[in-house]
Amino acid sequence: MGKDIICRPIGIIHSEHRNPGKTPIQPVFADGCTGRAEIFHNYEKGLQDIEGFSHILILYYFHKATTQKLLVKPFLENVEHGVFATCAPGRPNHIGVSVLRLVKREDNMLFLDNIDILDGTPILDIKPHVSRFNKRESVRSGWQEKIDDQTAYKLGRRM
Amino acid sequence: MGKDIICRPIGIIHSEHRNPGKTPIQPVFADGCTGRAEIFHNYEKGLQDIEGFSHILILYYFHKATTQKLLVKPFLENVEHGVFATCAPGRPNHIGVSVLRLVKREDNMLFLDNIDILDGTPILDIKPHVSRFNKRESVRSGWQEKIDDQTAYKLGRRM
Repeated sequence: MGKDIICRPIGIIHSEHRNPGKTPIQPVFADGCTGRAEIFHNYEKGLQDIEGFSHILILYYFHKATTQKLLVKPFLENVEHGVFATCAPGRPNHIGVSVLRLVKREDNMLFLDNIDILDGTPILDIKPHVSRFNKRESVRSGWQEKIDDQTAYKLGRRM
Repeated sequence: MGKDIICRPIGIIHSEHRNPGKTPIQPVFADGCTGRAEIFHNYEKGLQDIEGFSHILILYYFHKATTQKLLVKPFLENVEHGVFATCAPGRPNHIGVSVLRLVKREDNMLFLDNIDILDGTPILDIKPHVSRFNKRESVRSGWQEKIDDQTAYKLGRRM
C-alpha cells in the first residue's frame, strides 16, 4: 500500500476567507479576492525569478477538512460523485491545488489575486504556471458539463 | 513553521519510464507515452464518474528525488532559478503534478496517455481537469518565454 510520506509546510496563506462556507470554490470564481502567500524565510531563496510568471500553482493542505469520504456531493451539483471526480476538500490526503494570479513579490511575500483559499492554510509547494505546458485539446469535463457557466459562477462564488 | 503533515499513497503509476534521465519532463512532451494509474482497491469507490473527464490531474510523490535544493538549473535552461520558479523534482516536499489524458477506466485502473511519470511513483491524489476552471488570460511565463517551442520539445522530450 506504500509508505507514509511526511510533508512540511513551506509557508502560510493570508486571505479574507475565514468561513469555509463562504469561500469561493475555485480561483475562476474569486476575481478580486486578494491575499498573500507568506513563504517561510528558510525557503525564500527558492522564489528567485517567480515574479516573471503572471500565474502560479499553489499546493496546500486543507487544514479545516476533517472528513475523508470517497463519495461526495460537490458544491455545484446535488448528486454524489467519486471524490476523485471532484475537487472537494474532504479527500484522502486533503491536498488542494489553485492557479492564482501573482500580482507582485516582495521578498518572501507573494501578493495574489483570485484567491479561493482559507486564511491560515499551510502551503506545501509553489510551481510556475507555464502556458506552453497547459494547453489541452478536446477536453471533456464530465458531470461538470451539465452545469451552465452562470449557475456555476453563482454557486462557485457563493454569493 | 507549521506541523508535519502525513500523506498516504492512494495508488501507484505503471509506465515505460524507468530512467529518470530519459523521462519526458512534461505531459505536453509525452504524446504517445501510455501507462496506467493503479488506484488501491480501498480507494476505488472514489473514482466513480472520473471516466467522464478526458483529462485528469495527478498529484504524486517524486520518490526518486533525493535532493532538496532551493536553486536549481531546470531541464530547459542552463541557468539557476529558484526551485519554485521551476518544476524540478528536487524540491521541498517532492510533490509533482501532471495533467494527463484519461483514455479509459477499468475498475481501479486508469489508462493514461502523455505520461511523464516514472514507473513505480506513488500517487497522492487525482482531480478532474475542468476546462471552465482552467482558463487563464494574459499569461506571462517568465524565464520559460526565452526558450522557443521547438527547443523546448526537443529538450523536454529528451530524445
